[in-house]
Amino acid sequence: MDILSGISLASDVKKLNNKELDCLAGQIREMIVDAITKNGGHLSSNLGIVETTLALYKNFDFPTDKLIFDVGHQCYAHKILSGRKDNFSTIRLDGGLSGFPNKDESQFDPFTTGHAGSSISAGLGYCMARDKLGEDYTVISVVGDGSFSNGLNLEALFASNSKPKNFIVILNDNGMSISKNKNGFYSFISKSTVKSGYLGSKRAFLKVFRRSFITRALSSVKNFIKRLFNQDNYFENYGFKYVGVIDGNNIREMTDVLQKVKKVAKERAVLLHIKTTKGKGYKDAEMHSDFYHGVGSNLKNESGSFSLALGQKINNLIEKDKTVMAITAGMKDGTGLTAVESKFPNNFIDVGIAEEYAVTLASGMARGGLKPIVAIYSTFLQRGYDQILHDVCLQNLPVIFCLDRAGLVGSDGETHQGVFDLSYLSHMPNMTILAPNTTEELFDAIDYALALNSPVAIRYPKNQRVEQPFLSLKEGLWKEINLGKKANIVAVGPTMLNIANKCAENISGVGVISARTIKPLDESMLLKVKDTPLVVLEENSTIGGLGSMITLFYSNNKIQNKVLCLGVKDAFVKHGSVDEQLAKTNLDSKSAIGKILEFIQ
Amino acid sequence: MDILSGISLASDVKKLNNKELDCLAGQIREMIVDAITKNGGHLSSNLGIVETTLALYKNFDFPTDKLIFDVGHQCYAHKILSGRKDNFSTIRLDGGLSGFPNKDESQFDPFTTGHAGSSISAGLGYCMARDKLGEDYTVISVVGDGSFSNGLNLEALFASNSKPKNFIVILNDNGMSISKNKNGFYSFISKSTVKSGYLGSKRAFLKVFRRSFITRALSSVKNFIKRLFNQDNYFENYGFKYVGVIDGNNIREMTDVLQKVKKVAKERAVLLHIKTTKGKGYKDAEMHSDFYHGVGSNLKNESGSFSLALGQKINNLIEKDKTVMAITAGMKDGTGLTAVESKFPNNFIDVGIAEEYAVTLASGMARGGLKPIVAIYSTFLQRGYDQILHDVCLQNLPVIFCLDRAGLVGSDGETHQGVFDLSYLSHMPNMTILAPNTTEELFDAIDYALALNSPVAIRYPKNQRVEQPFLSLKEGLWKEINLGKKANIVAVGPTMLNIANKCAENISGVGVISARTIKPLDESMLLKVKDTPLVVLEENSTIGGLGSMITLFYSNNKIQNKVLCLGVKDAFVKHGSVDEQLAKTNLDSKSAIGKILEFIQ
Repeated sequence: MDILSGISLASDVKKLNNKELDCLAGQIREMIVDAITKNGGHLSSNLGIVETTLALYKNFDFPTDKLIFDVGHQCYAHKILSGRKDNFSTIRLDGGLSGFPNKDESQFDPFTTGHAGSSISAGLGYCMARDKLGEDYTVISVVGDGSFSNGLNLEALFASNSKPKNFIVILNDNGMSISKNKNGFYSFISKSTVKSGYLGSKRAFLKVFRRSFITRALSSVKNFIKRLFNQDNYFENYGFKYVGVIDGNNIREMTDVLQKVKKVAKERAVLLHIKTTKGKGYKDAEMHSDFYHGVGSNLKNESGSFSLALGQKINNLIEKDKTVMAITAGMKDGTGLTAVESKFPNNFIDVGIAEEYAVTLASGMARGGLKPIVAIYSTFLQRGYDQILHDVCLQNLPVIFCLDRAGLVGSDGETHQGVFDLSYLSHMPNMTILAPNTTEELFDAIDYALALNSPVAIRYPKNQRVEQPFLSLKEGLWKEINLGKKANIVAVGPTMLNIANKCAENISGVGVISARTIKPLDESMLLKVKDTPLVVLEENSTIGGLGSMITLFYSNNKIQNKVLCLGVKDAFVKHGSVDEQLAKTNLDSKSAIGKILEFIQ
Repeated sequence: MDILSGISLASDVKKLNNKELDCLAGQIREMIVDAITKNGGHLSSNLGIVETTLALYKNFDFPTDKLIFDVGHQCYAHKILSGRKDNFSTIRLDGGLSGFPNKDESQFDPFTTGHAGSSISAGLGYCMARDKLGEDYTVISVVGDGSFSNGLNLEALFASNSKPKNFIVILNDNGMSISKNKNGFYSFISKSTVKSGYLGSKRAFLKVFRRSFITRALSSVKNFIKRLFNQDNYFENYGFKYVGVIDGNNIREMTDVLQKVKKVAKERAVLLHIKTTKGKGYKDAEMHSDFYHGVGSNLKNESGSFSLALGQKINNLIEKDKTVMAITAGMKDGTGLTAVESKFPNNFIDVGIAEEYAVTLASGMARGGLKPIVAIYSTFLQRGYDQILHDVCLQNLPVIFCLDRAGLVGSDGETHQGVFDLSYLSHMPNMTILAPNTTEELFDAIDYALALNSPVAIRYPKNQRVEQPFLSLKEGLWKEINLGKKANIVAVGPTMLNIANKCAENISGVGVISARTIKPLDESMLLKVKDTPLVVLEENSTIGGLGSMITLFYSNNKIQNKVLCLGVKDAFVKHGSVDEQLAKTNLDSKSAIGKILEFIQ
């Protein structure tokens, strides 16, 4: 029975009976697994929320009602049901659907998400607007347990003891044990017993899966919800009617509950607590939900990855010095710190999705005499901006930040691009910024950082893309690969260095300099090449990036060199492959060659 | 009986009996009122915590034990007791004591604070360091109720259900009613009945007080603690032994309690909940604690202030359009929004010290059809960096940010300087940045922003410092005051425009351009003046500021103009008057004239 092909409008779901919905759930799972197997993406969380999504469509009228997914790792079924089914195979591909909710993609996505913690605040904002404008719709924020404890969500939750009507927060709690709740009007269901229409037949495909962009391991925050719910009536104090715990994988139950919740919500806000099985219906994913949380599609080999190198390096350091601490915020796999956790659990802390806390905790540790290394992706470290500036740099503390996924990140797209870090870090006094090109340079950068005894940010992409002979930072901040007579290219990071090398191969008289430090600048090198036109290649916004620092340096030193700054234009870069994104921003070798030829004419 | 003059070492407090301590409390209050009356500062919160501070000194050994004040509005008594008594009259003055805890000022200040929310994270970091290094000391974080609910503190509180031993969080709850707590081993004291040694005789001095930098009105978050404590044993779930509510103004009781708490803390972390009277012992301050929370010393006239103008402008807008919403984060007085609250309470929201929530709430409102105006000081908006980038700019939403206290802020010093906003905002795609010079230009900027229908940041200092004929932004982004043959100065903001004018008066052939937009640049103006040397004057870090954007623009357009960028150097600027800070950063007219003369030679 092919139900899915009959679903073209959101309202089509309303016509189905429970049996058909069960069947549809299986078909949606199949579609998700098919696409994610090919394109990469977030598997477990999306498989877990299928029945709940169907129950939501059965009871609410989207896009009139607003469905906001925190982070967005649970939006695939929603995309399929909201008229994007036929394009679903293009998810995360260049020109295709975004892997996250995106307001510009569909009116069914009321709010673009990607970073954790925004859904309750955004939902409250929508409700206030609705009530002010006299409109009539329901706002539903769906939050996973991992991001529920993020500071932004907590601020929104606790800021007021009254919450608007027709506001429903669904707390999706996947697979952990929670003490029996005595308060909700539905009983606690300890174990999911439903049978899904889809059972893993695609095991083979999954063999090739690798951990991809976001595997924000949630283990360290798992207990948060548990503690929260040890209090009866907890959410009642914050203006919510609490309903839970409901089996979010049971369509019948969820449909029934939501029907009642909808009525209750007309009088007051509801917090609906559901329990789902991560990776539901897909055996491999269900058993290893952390691993399958995020899966990449096109990773060749992790052996050259900076993440693996980081874990290895930190372990070597701890071996000799037990005061070195590794800290992450829900990214232990992605940043390579799982290796540290395994070998030196007492020197490892995963604070969960709480970047602010991670940074200030590290500053306290540094004041107390430890050597903290904070590994957080470039895009997520944005959340700790004020803490880096106010707690770390102001006190000039020896905290080392390792910014993985710096530069263009590929299919996760615009919410995840690591193209702002040079701009948000470079104006912080006392900060040193390093950009190693190889794992060997990463090792060296960490040693260099430890010796500095002040704040250091080390930024690098997922994978090394260039090979080159090693030169320690101690022997020169920037590395002269070769100097040209017509122009020199100053390149930041392995991807740009790779492209710089291609430019030099194709244009005679062009030299290449590897800028392994963004701050400080290698002023002696800049003076050395001051009479030859300079091209800056950086995988960062041109505004506030290395190029602007160089033009400022030359200007203030009365040096009138010609400088061409090539970096990410002042716009958000959508999903696609890294190579497609490089081309879009004119940072691919072909575009760069063209620009440089024009420049040196 | 002059007790205070006998206190030179921290340990001297230990020798005093309760009667002497009471007397000392009065003398400390007198010293605080004397200094703050002259220098400005935070009065109420500092007066409220005197007895608690004495009790802490009686029971703990500082600086071995670590005393961390959240925000730092409660550190004055601590400064007086920790060997800084003789310099206390210099507080907030150039070269004198900082108004905030500062690790570089004294070993008794373990952690520099100024922004809210860091103390629990920093305290936990210290504890982890101590335990790892096998050291033995107690860490005490003192948090006011207003900053307790900040996202950073909440993340730290909830991140783990186990807390280290010898860690004490003192929640100072000033003057609000809290339901009787049945859990602590001390009974709830509903009203303070103690008599202080000092009673307000300085009423006259206070007549000249004005609201100063931080009057983060806490009314909207007052209920937070109340709700929190409706749950018995609440903090027990997060690894704390809860003790409270204790009268923090009763030295005997506090001394006794802390002695017991110290013993308990050897086994497990303690959350000590105290109640104090804000402004205690100073009648005027006690009765109007919000008003006296922060007092300025040298404000002449508020009639020209941008804050008052903002409140007035927003009221005018709401008069005609009820979809305009004013939002602040604990700064309604300082940002001028009190006027909006009075006139249009339904169009005003103070979320408390929760900048992240304020920004994302506004983005939700904008998506829902409202026109939110978010007024937050430049320094505090740093806390919303990721939300502005990821929630507002990525969705290109019409949220207007009004950044009061931009530029150098004077006596609040390095934790509060508004000298990074151009750098942290300018690289955000879709963002427009305006810098009005007069209140009339502020009105125009807001109209201009509303018409744009996209993210706009409007930054301005506390007071207007320049007069000039009005020209709407619609008639030209930058305003040509006059053009020079030798050089043109592009000035950002009223203070710099004032100095630019002085430079032009003193150096013949120098013109002045008022840069009312930082983003976008006025490219036509930049092209118009491309053949005359350009000087950029901005009260912002030179890194990532307007100057760097101009040098980048000229470079990428193959224009080889000479550009001199004068801004705040790459260092934190300590407290002092704004004029002293301008001189320190070489942004005063004398320095600027010298630099320009050298430049145009």
